[in-house]
Amino acid sequence: MTVVELSGGVGGAKLAEGLAAHLGQDLIVVVNTGDDLERHGLAIWPDHDTVAYTLADLDDEVRGWGLRDETWTVMDRLAALGEEPWFRLGDRDLATHLWRTDRLLAGDRPTAVALALRSALGFAPTILPMADEPVRTQVRTDDGWLDFQEYFVHRHQAPDVHEVRFDGIESARATPEVRAAIGTADAIVLAPSNPIVSLAPVLAVPGLRDAIDEARSRGVPVVGVSGILGGVALKGPADRMLASLGHESSALGVARLLRDLLDVFVIDAVDADLASAIRALGPRVVVADTIMTDDEARSRVGALVLAATRAVPSAR
Amino acid sequence: MTVVELSGGVGGAKLAEGLAAHLGQDLIVVVNTGDDLERHGLAIWPDHDTVAYTLADLDDEVRGWGLRDETWTVMDRLAALGEEPWFRLGDRDLATHLWRTDRLLAGDRPTAVALALRSALGFAPTILPMADEPVRTQVRTDDGWLDFQEYFVHRHQAPDVHEVRFDGIESARATPEVRAAIGTADAIVLAPSNPIVSLAPVLAVPGLRDAIDEARSRGVPVVGVSGILGGVALKGPADRMLASLGHESSALGVARLLRDLLDVFVIDAVDADLASAIRALGPRVVVADTIMTDDEARSRVGALVLAATRAVPSAR
Repeated sequence: MTVVELSGGVGGAKLAEGLAAHLGQDLIVVVNTGDDLERHGLAIWPDHDTVAYTLADLDDEVRGWGLRDETWTVMDRLAALGEEPWFRLGDRDLATHLWRTDRLLAGDRPTAVALALRSALGFAPTILPMADEPVRTQVRTDDGWLDFQEYFVHRHQAPDVHEVRFDGIESARATPEVRAAIGTADAIVLAPSNPIVSLAPVLAVPGLRDAIDEARSRGVPVVGVSGILGGVALKGPADRMLASLGHESSALGVARLLRDLLDVFVIDAVDADLASAIRALGPRVVVADTIMTDDEARSRVGALVLAATRAVPSAR
Repeated sequence: MTVVELSGGVGGAKLAEGLAAHLGQDLIVVVNTGDDLERHGLAIWPDHDTVAYTLADLDDEVRGWGLRDETWTVMDRLAALGEEPWFRLGDRDLATHLWRTDRLLAGDRPTAVALALRSALGFAPTILPMADEPVRTQVRTDDGWLDFQEYFVHRHQAPDVHEVRFDGIESARATPEVRAAIGTADAIVLAPSNPIVSLAPVLAVPGLRDAIDEARSRGVPVVGVSGILGGVALKGPADRMLASLGHESSALGVARLLRDLLDVFVIDAVDADLASAIRALGPRVVVADTIMTDDEARSRVGALVLAATRAVPSAR
């Protein structure tokens, strides 16, 4: 079976690894590009690279981002020049950005660059940027609108987020590759990524949601996985962001945001008491251990997500 | 006294170090930008950085370019991604390019960026780009027109050069800083750099030659140093380039190219037999040991060049 996963960074990458253990090249990850940025003239794609490095088994699982066995010579030297960069790029990671920037400057579409990087890194699944046009997530805080990475990395997600926008989204279009992937998918998976700044930009790309709705009308199930466990985000600011935007910081709160889309929602065993309230919103609910601490756990969660897709009666 | 040196890369950098030993902050190096290039989206200034690293005593004297104690993690990783870059950038060197590219993208003039890098690296003389507008040297070979670094680095200076042009030169202008430096200089020094692709682009910047002529009309001497010794370039392809362009590959050939500009020409002792022929072209000739192998030799050559500027009767 072919599965399309809509994904942000770390949580989505872990689930992608778990799904890839069963699907190999039949997994297509459509990745958020709203976190992308330009630094030092280089094109940096944090969510894409987190997924790519994880699928290539190059990720640093201890640090939680970037490459294993990383060195920091370039950043240390930048500091010696008097500039202490808040967005730190490791030496090995920088090579990816140089490699990508060359291709983008040569006129290649981001999608083509992502496909070429897959070949260069040598992993089986496909990663597709959600769109080829630039989309830049911004968050409104008490200090005004901030670029996403300014908020996320530079300010350590400390400010409360009052509003989110995706600059450029109206000019973006679901790519032919993304539409074809969704059009031929047997199931669509929503990663346990931040629903507000990881999943929402993907779903907001014009044409992408239509493609999903069209797939669902043919009986293709959408299975979500909650990234909020016991009211807390496993990683990142999703919990505080949900709260400051007036949502409930819980699997139920996430289910409410995604209710129009969910056929099945996988929640963690710690949230079993929320199952009936989520069911009342519409989706089936699967309760399971969902923490993906190691390869074995990722594979197990991947398997149960795939099983959940099959639990949906087809032909709606 | 204030001295302006017009310079290319390695030879000019060595002389700059020798002059700086006596002049400190009263040395202003106007550096060729025709060799500059963009790689991976980064602004790379080879001649500027060679002079800057040398003046900051960070240069790798064994390798002859780049920084001492350099590492190559980024390039090695690029190779692992399947791209073996012909223009190799060390990790520490890359930091300079990231630092510079940030400032240029922020809208700073190249001159301002060069001045800021001087502060960051902490050396006494000033380095000024010959112009703020992009100038790109190209050479015509049997394979057609090549970008300078394509010829110089990628093809190892192997092709014969039949013609040279400086793309963008007609839109360039001598900067206020360069004109002010020349306008207040007590002497102007032409580095032992390649006369065709290092000195010629500097002298071709509209307004720069006029500023020199105006200084000379006030009695400011121009002292050149030959980079061709015994018919051979100490470094780089100047000798073959002179020959393939129909010039004599010798100190005399260089003197003929620069004759309109030279008040004094410093040639090496090995070329003593050319002194009278060069004198016949107009300039005084100083014959001396000019090879700058170590700091002591550089300082000695710097001193003799400064002495040569004083040997010129002022008020022409």
